[in-house]
Amino acid sequence: MSDDQSKPMIGMPEGPVPKAVVSRLSLYLRELQRILGEGQATISSTQLGSLLGFSDAQVRKDLAYFGQFGYPGIGYRCEELVAAVRRILGTDRPWNAAIVGMGNLGRALIGYRGFLNQGFRVVSIFEVDSGKVGWQVEGVQVYHIDQMPEIVRTLGVRLALIAVPAATAQQVAEKLVGAGIEGILNFAPVTLTVPPTVSLVEVDLAMQLEQLAFAVVNREKST
Amino acid sequence: MSDDQSKPMIGMPEGPVPKAVVSRLSLYLRELQRILGEGQATISSTQLGSLLGFSDAQVRKDLAYFGQFGYPGIGYRCEELVAAVRRILGTDRPWNAAIVGMGNLGRALIGYRGFLNQGFRVVSIFEVDSGKVGWQVEGVQVYHIDQMPEIVRTLGVRLALIAVPAATAQQVAEKLVGAGIEGILNFAPVTLTVPPTVSLVEVDLAMQLEQLAFAVVNREKST
Repeated sequence: MSDDQSKPMIGMPEGPVPKAVVSRLSLYLRELQRILGEGQATISSTQLGSLLGFSDAQVRKDLAYFGQFGYPGIGYRCEELVAAVRRILGTDRPWNAAIVGMGNLGRALIGYRGFLNQGFRVVSIFEVDSGKVGWQVEGVQVYHIDQMPEIVRTLGVRLALIAVPAATAQQVAEKLVGAGIEGILNFAPVTLTVPPTVSLVEVDLAMQLEQLAFAVVNREKST
Repeated sequence: MSDDQSKPMIGMPEGPVPKAVVSRLSLYLRELQRILGEGQATISSTQLGSLLGFSDAQVRKDLAYFGQFGYPGIGYRCEELVAAVRRILGTDRPWNAAIVGMGNLGRALIGYRGFLNQGFRVVSIFEVDSGKVGWQVEGVQVYHIDQMPEIVRTLGVRLALIAVPAATAQQVAEKLVGAGIEGILNFAPVTLTVPPTVSLVEVDLAMQLEQLAFAVVNREKST
């Protein structure tokens, strides 16, 4: 259709994209980044699918939500598909993020290398404990939670990771919303309520263990 | 079909169950536990689906993999469905788990309340640093990593959470496999290789942030 066939066209679909499709995009991205790091330049949908336990049809159908990425007789060009998926996910530009809470989990998240690799920069930490305000942790400044509106604005913080106890998580979420945060990743084991103008992803680490338990039990049965 | 219609029948399907279905089981379970905690005794597939952003057909199809759980004119009985999903996931019995690595992430995982609520008991911590061996953290004993085979056997540890740096994660995984661990939850930002007799779930916290970025970008577009 286009004169320039050297670059894939990305179009966001009109309707909502199923969450499962979006989470598979992350899986595809990580696998493509890995094989690209190993020096492989192209990959077929069959190969990409089989690395992740999906069918080739699934891979093609998921990507077809966003455009036409494969080349006949070649498959996908890894570097190009990595760039396209990052553009779809919105991680082709860097995101500034803040962590709220400097307990063990907060500290672990500050040092988590995977974030920066994928375009997420932790630029501030918020704490309720005045004794910790002014600290630097892994080069990131700790601010008092009351400084949130000012710091969010001046540092251009768009996302926040809640790593406080369950009892205070909703209160923290409301402060974040008030400060103009656009998206919240919640690690506290409690369901939060935020206005529809703010995106929320809940991380439940026990779910990952449940998936593992299921895999173990069903491996037992099948062998 | 059965004389006793008061209890649902659970049957594990012959073929493999898609991972997406299993992860939705965890979502259903958490939602059911929450509404049960609020005193609601029954729920329709429409209501359960809409709480999670799925269609009623999706909910019914997912559960139909494992049996017949709804009652005409009633919907699902929450307590019964919670018990059934836990049975399917294998978390109707407690699982003993170990954490390897006592950095910030390891410490955060020891104190993570969500695990015990869902039937996962952290019964030991393994560390390579001899200086920490013998410590107790939140009532859990720290052992040297070389004691793994003995402790795994005597404490009946079946699952392990890897919370060590990426550089040593594969080596730790091999020690765990050698010690007879059945399932590994890997938090290190590196892909691990384990034999097919051991189940592996990789946790990539950056993926959760990618999902959030996508949600923010697409909320922007749609409003």
